[in-house]
Amino acid sequence: MTQMPIVFTRGVPPAESFPKDRLAQAASDVLAEYGDVVLQYGPSRGFEPLRALIAEEKKAKSTDIILGQGSLQLLDLYARMTIRPGDVVYLEAPTYDRTLTILKRAGAEIAAFPVLSDGLDVDAVETSLKQGRRPSFFYLIPDFQNPSGTTLSLDKRVRILELASTYGFLVIEDIPYRRLRYRGEESPSFRQLAPEITLQLSSYSKLIAPGLRVGYVLAPTSVSEPLAKYAEDTYINASYFNQALVYKLASSGWLDMHLMDLIALYTPRLDTMLASLDAHLHGFASWHRPDGGFFMGVNLDKAVPIDLLKQRAAAANLQLTDGRGFFANGDGERFLRLPFCALKPEEIQEGIARLAGVIVG
Amino acid sequence: MTQMPIVFTRGVPPAESFPKDRLAQAASDVLAEYGDVVLQYGPSRGFEPLRALIAEEKKAKSTDIILGQGSLQLLDLYARMTIRPGDVVYLEAPTYDRTLTILKRAGAEIAAFPVLSDGLDVDAVETSLKQGRRPSFFYLIPDFQNPSGTTLSLDKRVRILELASTYGFLVIEDIPYRRLRYRGEESPSFRQLAPEITLQLSSYSKLIAPGLRVGYVLAPTSVSEPLAKYAEDTYINASYFNQALVYKLASSGWLDMHLMDLIALYTPRLDTMLASLDAHLHGFASWHRPDGGFFMGVNLDKAVPIDLLKQRAAAANLQLTDGRGFFANGDGERFLRLPFCALKPEEIQEGIARLAGVIVG
Repeated sequence: MTQMPIVFTRGVPPAESFPKDRLAQAASDVLAEYGDVVLQYGPSRGFEPLRALIAEEKKAKSTDIILGQGSLQLLDLYARMTIRPGDVVYLEAPTYDRTLTILKRAGAEIAAFPVLSDGLDVDAVETSLKQGRRPSFFYLIPDFQNPSGTTLSLDKRVRILELASTYGFLVIEDIPYRRLRYRGEESPSFRQLAPEITLQLSSYSKLIAPGLRVGYVLAPTSVSEPLAKYAEDTYINASYFNQALVYKLASSGWLDMHLMDLIALYTPRLDTMLASLDAHLHGFASWHRPDGGFFMGVNLDKAVPIDLLKQRAAAANLQLTDGRGFFANGDGERFLRLPFCALKPEEIQEGIARLAGVIVG
Repeated sequence: MTQMPIVFTRGVPPAESFPKDRLAQAASDVLAEYGDVVLQYGPSRGFEPLRALIAEEKKAKSTDIILGQGSLQLLDLYARMTIRPGDVVYLEAPTYDRTLTILKRAGAEIAAFPVLSDGLDVDAVETSLKQGRRPSFFYLIPDFQNPSGTTLSLDKRVRILELASTYGFLVIEDIPYRRLRYRGEESPSFRQLAPEITLQLSSYSKLIAPGLRVGYVLAPTSVSEPLAKYAEDTYINASYFNQALVYKLASSGWLDMHLMDLIALYTPRLDTMLASLDAHLHGFASWHRPDGGFFMGVNLDKAVPIDLLKQRAAAANLQLTDGRGFFANGDGERFLRLPFCALKPEEIQEGIARLAGVIVG
């Protein structure tokens, strides 16, 4: 008898969270109210009302916000615009695999620093800086990191910013999961602590739906100005129509209520993940207990050769991501990323039980 | 008394052509029918039903079609993926200014060949090839060229393809205006003549609305395969939601009817432009009489220094594009691009009357 497949590979929101009816209504409203604007070409920064709304929330200038087809696209533009071959970029290890791809392609030399249970090993960062290896920027996912699930403590944020100021580099914080906090208190963002040296990336992919492809970067004017020009020269503008849909949902207060629904949907999934790991993998692996986001990172006590792991996982109809994709240097054979938001609690239970069989053998 | 401004600067469709109600209905239908798919992440090639529809029309494989956030983005991806500094690229002179920007930024060395009244000077192209200057590709806008309005004759298409085959380069044909033909017979596209060495770019920006940001590239598999990966690595995917809106409008037959409406809307604008030029600029300039598209290119018999032209145009409240932006080598001081689709006939008449004053002095 074949088991149902269980997919631990992609960090996507579940289809049951997509607000289809609300979006249909928003589309109708947006076309009636803003049709002439949102169906036309426009300046590359994007639909002004959404930028103004974000700017108000962030206490920023709306011209320092650039809306794009997801935030990854904007990171790619920034990397392309600024990185010259051989430039050093600092990252967390593990980090978001797509960021790794983008930075390597841009020609960056990557220095990656281990993520501990409360986030980055800042001592290792400081040592590297003292040894003279200065980066163009430090890319971080400070809240519910993809893939480890960790959140950077306030102390470490402050220390990183002190180092950034001393050694002269920018911080790029990527915070798509920040508002998906299921418990605990949030720390100030890097942008809140030091707006003049922070680029903030975020998106509505995890808050409304990925398919809208609406993300943004908030940057100091010295960056936002040339970046807006670079974006225009690349694709003219991203879709104002989609940006206006987000604006409708966010400005009406609907998004805030929807976030409460998402938190109610995802909290038991996280709890089930934690309880299942406790029940099945205690003594075989360690993990951080995240307070939000989409992911848990699990470190196996003993590496299982990746081919064997894949073979056993396939036999159990369990889809796992190769952990090495999250490490710049080929590490990660003991690392597993487990996304929990797109699986129902019973799938998580079953999946972790199967995972234990795969790992313990 | 200040005159109403007349804007001859941007080649955009007029707001009155935007199908707002139809799009609102399509949005509602798409979300009900395809919501789970179009609101999620997906493979970078894009929404399969739209690719299948285009593939059927083009007699192509749907996997050789990649949908993007406009076709410019896809040209940029291809240029980035393939051009190494110093690579030669052939262009028309004049050509689309945004293409120039993208190719220069990618590090291409540009060789541009004059556009005659039936399109490109192919003899000059052949001479260059015989002299050993071989390009990676030849980028052409064969139908109702932006900015000159010319259409490449079938004979010249065939000759260019013979040269491409002999000297081993690809043809990139950018055909966003091809379906906006107001009179006359169309020639086969490069893709129809030689699919194995042609990349075809097009978009729905001029057929439905730019704000949807849906364009595509159709390429041989040897190109579409790595390009799809390159796209994924850059932005994951463009918006399936927007692609599905296009699919709804195109698959229902609505788009074909809409094209007839657009042709009925734009034909008198082209005719008014031609009549006004005949009335006011005969003896001072020459121009090709296009059969479709958005643009007329006008060549002044005598150059008016650009600063003087701008000063006089400003005094007449007439907005003109600096013709030099369409030429790689700084030529173009005698060239004017006159878009006619977004202006009402009376605005065109008034605009050309003012233009005559500006030019004749």
